[in-house]
Amino acid sequence: MKKHQVTERVRYFETDRMKVAHHTAYMVWFEVGRTSLMEEVGFPYREMEERGYFLPVVEFSCRLKAGADYGDTVKIETWVERLRTRSVTFGYLATRDGVELAQGWTKHLCVDKINRSRKLPAGIIEALLPYAEITIAGKAAK
Amino acid sequence: MKKHQVTERVRYFETDRMKVAHHTAYMVWFEVGRTSLMEEVGFPYREMEERGYFLPVVEFSCRLKAGADYGDTVKIETWVERLRTRSVTFGYLATRDGVELAQGWTKHLCVDKINRSRKLPAGIIEALLPYAEITIAGKAAK
Amino acid sequence: MKKHQVTERVRYFETDRMKVAHHTAYMVWFEVGRTSLMEEVGFPYREMEERGYFLPVVEFSCRLKAGADYGDTVKIETWVERLRTRSVTFGYLATRDGVELAQGWTKHLCVDKINRSRKLPAGIIEALLPYAEITIAGKAAK
Amino acid sequence: MKKHQVTERVRYFETDRMKVAHHTAYMVWFEVGRTSLMEEVGFPYREMEERGYFLPVVEFSCRLKAGADYGDTVKIETWVERLRTRSVTFGYLATRDGVELAQGWTKHLCVDKINRSRKLPAGIIEALLPYAEITIAGKAAK
Repeated sequence: MKKHQVTERVRYFETDRMKVAHHTAYMVWFEVGRTSLMEEVGFPYREMEERGYFLPVVEFSCRLKAGADYGDTVKIETWVERLRTRSVTFGYLATRDGVELAQGWTKHLCVDKINRSRKLPAGIIEALLPYAEITIAGKAAK
Repeated sequence: MKKHQVTERVRYFETDRMKVAHHTAYMVWFEVGRTSLMEEVGFPYREMEERGYFLPVVEFSCRLKAGADYGDTVKIETWVERLRTRSVTFGYLATRDGVELAQGWTKHLCVDKINRSRKLPAGIIEALLPYAEITIAGKAAK
Repeated sequence: MKKHQVTERVRYFETDRMKVAHHTAYMVWFEVGRTSLMEEVGFPYREMEERGYFLPVVEFSCRLKAGADYGDTVKIETWVERLRTRSVTFGYLATRDGVELAQGWTKHLCVDKINRSRKLPAGIIEALLPYAEITIAGKAAK
Repeated sequence: MKKHQVTERVRYFETDRMKVAHHTAYMVWFEVGRTSLMEEVGFPYREMEERGYFLPVVEFSCRLKAGADYGDTVKIETWVERLRTRSVTFGYLATRDGVELAQGWTKHLCVDKINRSRKLPAGIIEALLPYAEITIAGKAAK
């Protein structure tokens, strides 16, 4: 299984009075991670929205092990934890110099412009499969 | 001239590693101030957008005198600095217990859904006039 | 068991291009909720930090049922899901006009200034007990 | 005069219901720009704070010409508009594919840990000079 990588520097804006990145910053970096993964597999999310496929976050979870301070370089690895015809769950790992900072996941439903459930676009499941931890019915991740 | 008042408590999220609210927090509180003022005068901004009147920020400025820390109660006063048929400039003052924290202003153009200049909706100038520092052509603020 | 209540209006800043509050906004509102609860029970969190008790978020989770748009009034109920001598887990429910928007929880460890585990301050467990869903050893929530 | 360059992609989190980056996002990108410039000239700002030199924003201003949407690549150019022994003003230009999105500036005072005015650290003026638009007493920018 492949993992997609991006790196981000912690912004001053993202720190709080505890002198570490606020816990919401991880969710924003995870968003950067899946944005980049979707682009890499040929399904830029902005284009998906233009085509009427929206992937709102319906559930998320995150565990923090260590703090990241202003200027730190954070590596975010993104993969697919679960892939269904109408939903997708991404997994994430944030590290700094090999040390785990946080891990988490976000679950997304596929809906249309007026929030009705719809199937993910044709081809996306195949495109995401190399990054998928868990198989979907009858398809094995490499 | 009347000034509209709201109070906000500084959120942990809004602080940074200098242990004060990040300078962008003032712009967000000013936004809360003008949202509340627009409601008070009968032109809730969300409804304005639904009617096709958009007021994007085209310029803003802010001067900071003192820092606000987590939990501080910040009073934001909002008024109208300049009122034209196609633009409006709001003025703001943020204080804590009577001490000035920041002052600033935001200039907004009135545009339609596809970003073309348009006149502010009928009646809004009269509605905002009591909060206006500067008169518009031929109309004196009270 | 009591639940603490606060209400927040969705800020323009908090919305995203899907025209609802970004999912991180719920974590910020939950933070406002627990800040207010801690104050109500006589342990303002800012004072706790000044006394050397830090409660960093070590895990969080949130499920979203419906979107909240700009200007919506969101009620956040906060309670204690789990109370230990060195950690506390808060539970949250966000609603708009009685309709569930989101629910979630945050787990916090108690640490000192240099991040070493320490016991929660004396008296806080008793103070939080009326808001506690789950008892701590030998103490029943009312 | 040299200008320092960084590029950022617009994050979903940074957009608002007008489907463009919120105006505060520019201030955050400008912060990224000056962080990077300070590193390039050998005065990483995090280290400066560790040495007791703080550069809080005391004034800022920004003019917006066009909106940036989710995923857009924004180039931020940063330079020094004014350099004094106890303050510095940075200038910024944000563009997308050569089109101006915004320009602005931030003024910073140099203070110590307890907010008393102090001189900028030795050597920083010489280091910043190549990026300076305006000379300081007796020193010409190249």
